[in-house]
Amino acid sequence: MTSIDLNADLGEGFGRWRLTDDERLLSVVTSANVACGFHAGDAATMRRVCELAAGRGVRIGAQVSYRDLAGFGRRAMDVPPAELAAEVAYQIGALEVFARAAGARVAYVKPHGALYNRVVRDEEQAGAVVDGILLADAALPVLGLPGSRLLELAGKAGLPVVTEAFADRAYTDEGTLVPRRQEGAVVTDPASVVARSVDLARSGEVETRSGRRIGMRARSLCLHGDTPGAVDLARRVRGALEASGVRVEAFA
Amino acid sequence: MTSIDLNADLGEGFGRWRLTDDERLLSVVTSANVACGFHAGDAATMRRVCELAAGRGVRIGAQVSYRDLAGFGRRAMDVPPAELAAEVAYQIGALEVFARAAGARVAYVKPHGALYNRVVRDEEQAGAVVDGILLADAALPVLGLPGSRLLELAGKAGLPVVTEAFADRAYTDEGTLVPRRQEGAVVTDPASVVARSVDLARSGEVETRSGRRIGMRARSLCLHGDTPGAVDLARRVRGALEASGVRVEAFA
Amino acid sequence: MTSIDLNADLGEGFGRWRLTDDERLLSVVTSANVACGFHAGDAATMRRVCELAAGRGVRIGAQVSYRDLAGFGRRAMDVPPAELAAEVAYQIGALEVFARAAGARVAYVKPHGALYNRVVRDEEQAGAVVDGILLADAALPVLGLPGSRLLELAGKAGLPVVTEAFADRAYTDEGTLVPRRQEGAVVTDPASVVARSVDLARSGEVETRSGRRIGMRARSLCLHGDTPGAVDLARRVRGALEASGVRVEAFA
Amino acid sequence: MTSIDLNADLGEGFGRWRLTDDERLLSVVTSANVACGFHAGDAATMRRVCELAAGRGVRIGAQVSYRDLAGFGRRAMDVPPAELAAEVAYQIGALEVFARAAGARVAYVKPHGALYNRVVRDEEQAGAVVDGILLADAALPVLGLPGSRLLELAGKAGLPVVTEAFADRAYTDEGTLVPRRQEGAVVTDPASVVARSVDLARSGEVETRSGRRIGMRARSLCLHGDTPGAVDLARRVRGALEASGVRVEAFA
Repeated sequence: MTSIDLNADLGEGFGRWRLTDDERLLSVVTSANVACGFHAGDAATMRRVCELAAGRGVRIGAQVSYRDLAGFGRRAMDVPPAELAAEVAYQIGALEVFARAAGARVAYVKPHGALYNRVVRDEEQAGAVVDGILLADAALPVLGLPGSRLLELAGKAGLPVVTEAFADRAYTDEGTLVPRRQEGAVVTDPASVVARSVDLARSGEVETRSGRRIGMRARSLCLHGDTPGAVDLARRVRGALEASGVRVEAFA
Repeated sequence: MTSIDLNADLGEGFGRWRLTDDERLLSVVTSANVACGFHAGDAATMRRVCELAAGRGVRIGAQVSYRDLAGFGRRAMDVPPAELAAEVAYQIGALEVFARAAGARVAYVKPHGALYNRVVRDEEQAGAVVDGILLADAALPVLGLPGSRLLELAGKAGLPVVTEAFADRAYTDEGTLVPRRQEGAVVTDPASVVARSVDLARSGEVETRSGRRIGMRARSLCLHGDTPGAVDLARRVRGALEASGVRVEAFA
Repeated sequence: MTSIDLNADLGEGFGRWRLTDDERLLSVVTSANVACGFHAGDAATMRRVCELAAGRGVRIGAQVSYRDLAGFGRRAMDVPPAELAAEVAYQIGALEVFARAAGARVAYVKPHGALYNRVVRDEEQAGAVVDGILLADAALPVLGLPGSRLLELAGKAGLPVVTEAFADRAYTDEGTLVPRRQEGAVVTDPASVVARSVDLARSGEVETRSGRRIGMRARSLCLHGDTPGAVDLARRVRGALEASGVRVEAFA
Repeated sequence: MTSIDLNADLGEGFGRWRLTDDERLLSVVTSANVACGFHAGDAATMRRVCELAAGRGVRIGAQVSYRDLAGFGRRAMDVPPAELAAEVAYQIGALEVFARAAGARVAYVKPHGALYNRVVRDEEQAGAVVDGILLADAALPVLGLPGSRLLELAGKAGLPVVTEAFADRAYTDEGTLVPRRQEGAVVTDPASVVARSVDLARSGEVETRSGRRIGMRARSLCLHGDTPGAVDLARRVRGALEASGVRVEAFA
C-alpha cells in the first residue's frame, strides 16, 4: 500500500501577529514545519505549536530560515557559510527545547523561503545548512526538493534525505518547479490540486507543463495553510488521498 | 580545603561588535555565562565560545536575558510570564546545541542584566524564569543572588541553586547589594577587590558598607571581563585565591 | 456646532503580517495613528498608509512605541530617558519622510501601548517622550489621556495638547480608565459604544462605572480597528455622531 | 587650488557596543557617513554624532543599509525594490531629525557595505535606492563609486552625484576596485596610503595594480576609522594633503 507524508508550514506568526491556522492544519498534516524565530515564530508560539503537534502525533520539523523578520525570510541573503551554519543550528536547538518539553523531538529540518530556493543550486549555502544540521544532530532527516544541492550534500554527509513535491505547482519536463513569476506556475484550481496530489502519491509521476509524465518520487507532499481556503483544500487533498487508498503518514 | 567557582559573562558581542575578551577570560574563570542572542551573542559567537570553553574545561552556562539587543538587556521589561518562560527556554535550547557540539552541556542558567535584578524580588518573573528552565531541563542549576526570589522559587521547584557574591560590590548589613546609583556601591580599588575575594572565599563572610561582618556563603564569585583592566584584575583574583589555598573549581 | 476627531491605530502590520484594515479604517477616521516601525509598521507599510491617508485628507500622526516587535509594544520597558527621547524622535523622523512624500506632514504624536500607559504617571518617561517630540518638532501636538503626566509636561514645554476619550472603556469617578484586568473595564455592547460616543461628543461628559456623570472634555475619540467587527463599529459610531449633528473632523 | 572632501563611516556602534572612534574621526573628516540604525547606529548614537558633527562643521550624510544588524549590513540581500526604496527613505528621515535638531541637515546619502557593492552593477536595487532618496528629498546628493549604476541612475533622476575614491584600495586598469578577496586588493602600508591620497587629490589620477596611471576624478576620499590605527592614518592623510596644498573641504 502506498503511503505519503503531508507537510505544511506552521507557527508562522510573531508576537501579536498570526498567519497560519495552526490548530486546523494540525488536523490535516503528518509533519509540521515549525518556524523557529528567524522569519517568524516567537518562543511562545513555538511552544504552543509543539504541544499541539505532539498531542496529535504530528511530527515536528525545524523550518530554518535566514534571519529576516521584516522580509519573512523571503529575501535571499549572502550569509557567510560559518554564520549560516551556526544560525541553522541555533534555530534547531531552540525548537528542540519545545519539542522535548512536549514529549517529542525535532524529527527533521526543512529550510524556509529564500533559503529553500537558494540551496537548490547554491553549493556553499547548501553545505552551510548541512553543517548546521550536523552541529545539531548528525542523524536528522532533511526535507527538500529532489535534485537539490541540499539533498545531495546532506546525503553525502550521511543525513537521511526526504523528497517532497508540490501538487499546486507546475513542473518542467526536467522535473524542476516552473518559477513563480512565469504564467501557469501555480495550479489554482482546487480540483486539479486534489487530482494531482492523488496522482503523485499513487503513480510516483507528475504531469509536466508540456503534458508529459515524468517520475517524481516524493515521500512528502507540501501543503499550504496561510489562508482559510488553503486549509480547506489541504483537507480535501487528505480526504482524496485516503479515499483512493493512499495511507497518509509521516515518513519513516 | 575551601573551593570556589569563578564565573563571568562571555560572548557578549553581536555580529561585527565585540565586547568581552573571551579567550583571556576563559583562562581565568571556571564557569562561563554565555550570552544566548537576546541581549548579545550571535550564533557564530556562541559556537566559538562553547568550543573554547569546552576545550579548556570551563563550564558553560546560559546567560538568559530579556529580548533587548538595543538596550543590552539592561531595560527591565514587563514580559508576560508565559512569554518570558518560553523565551528563557528558547535561549537555553539554542545554547545547548553549541555546548553539545563542543562535547559539553549547558550546565547552569544565570539571568542577565535587568532580568537578573528583577527576579531578586519580582515573584511573577522569577517564577517565569523557573518555568522556562524547567521546560528546558528540570535538573539545571540556577546561579543567582542569595535570598533572591529566583533562587527561592528554583529551590522549591527542585532545581539545584548556586549562590554567588561580588567582590567588587558593597553590601548592606542585610546582605543585599548597595544599589549602583549610591555612592560607594562599586569597589574600584583592585587591591581591595582581590582582598575581598580571598576573604569571601575563605571566611564565608563579607564586610558590609558599615564595617560589620556578615555571613555570605557564595559558591561562586562573579568577575567582570568587559574591559582589559577587568581581565587583569580577574587574573589577580584567581592568583590570590590559589595562593591563599583556595581551590578554584566549578561548583559541583 | 460640536465637532470631534476620530483617531485609530493604523499600519500595524509588519512585513508579511497584517493586522489593521487600513483602507476601511481610513474611510472612517479623521486622524491616523501610524505605527513607525518599533512595535509594528515596516517602511513600505508606512509609505502606503501615508499615501492613502493623505489621499483622503486624513491627518497623519506618529504612533511612537518602545522598541519591541516581539511584544507589539505592550511590554513596559525601563528605557533610560535619553535613549527613549532619541527613539521617539527617530520614529517621528522616519514617518515624516513618508508623510511629506505623500504631500502631508506628521501632524501629531501619540504614544502606543505600554508607553501610552506608562506616561500617564511616569514623570521621567513622560518627560523623555516630550524631549523626543521637541527634538523632532517643537510645535507638534501630543494626543493623550486627560490628566496624564505626558500632556501636563507637553503643555509646560509649549507643545499643543489634545485630549482623547474611549467610548468602549469604563471610567472611574475620578475620570481615569478602569484597568483592563477589572471586570467591566471594556464596553463590548456595540449599541452602548455608539451611544456613549454620541453622549461624550455632545455633552462633554461620560457616565462612570458607578453611574455618575463627570466632565470629560475630549477633542478626539479613539476607535479600534484590529478586527473586522471593530471597523464596522467605528463606522456606526461615525454615522451616529453625524446623524446627531456632531461634525466629525480632525482637531484644529 | 585643488580641494577634496574626506568622508568616513561614523556612529557604527549599537547600544552597548562601540566601533568607530567618532570624536577623533570628526576632527579629521569633512563628511560623516552616519549609520542610521539598519546595520548599526542606535537613535541615541545618531543624535550624539549629529551634534558633534554639526558642532565641528562636518557635513552629515545618511549611510543607508540593508536591514541587517546581525551581519552589519555586509550580507547582500534580495530586497524587493519597493521595500528597499521605503527602507532607504525611512533611514534618511530618521537621521534628518537629529541633523535638524543639531542645526544641520542631511546633506548626502551613501549606501553601506553590501548595498554599496550591490548597486555598483545591480540596476534594480540601484534604482530602488534612487527612488528612496527621491522620496526623502529630490535634491540630495549621492556619494558613490564612479561608473556605478547608482550614480548613473541618480544622475538621470536629477540628483547631484559625488564620486569617491579609496587610497587604500588597489584599482584595475578599468578603474574598478580590485575585489577584496584578491591578493593586493588592500594597500596596507601607511606611507603608500598617504602618498596615494595626495597623488589622487592633486593629479586626478590613480596608479593601477599594473602600474598604469588612469584618470580618477574623485571629489571625495573615503577614509576608515574602525581601528585606532586607522584614525591615526586618516590624520596623516589629511595632514599630507594640506601640506601639499590641497584644500580639505566638504564637496559643494
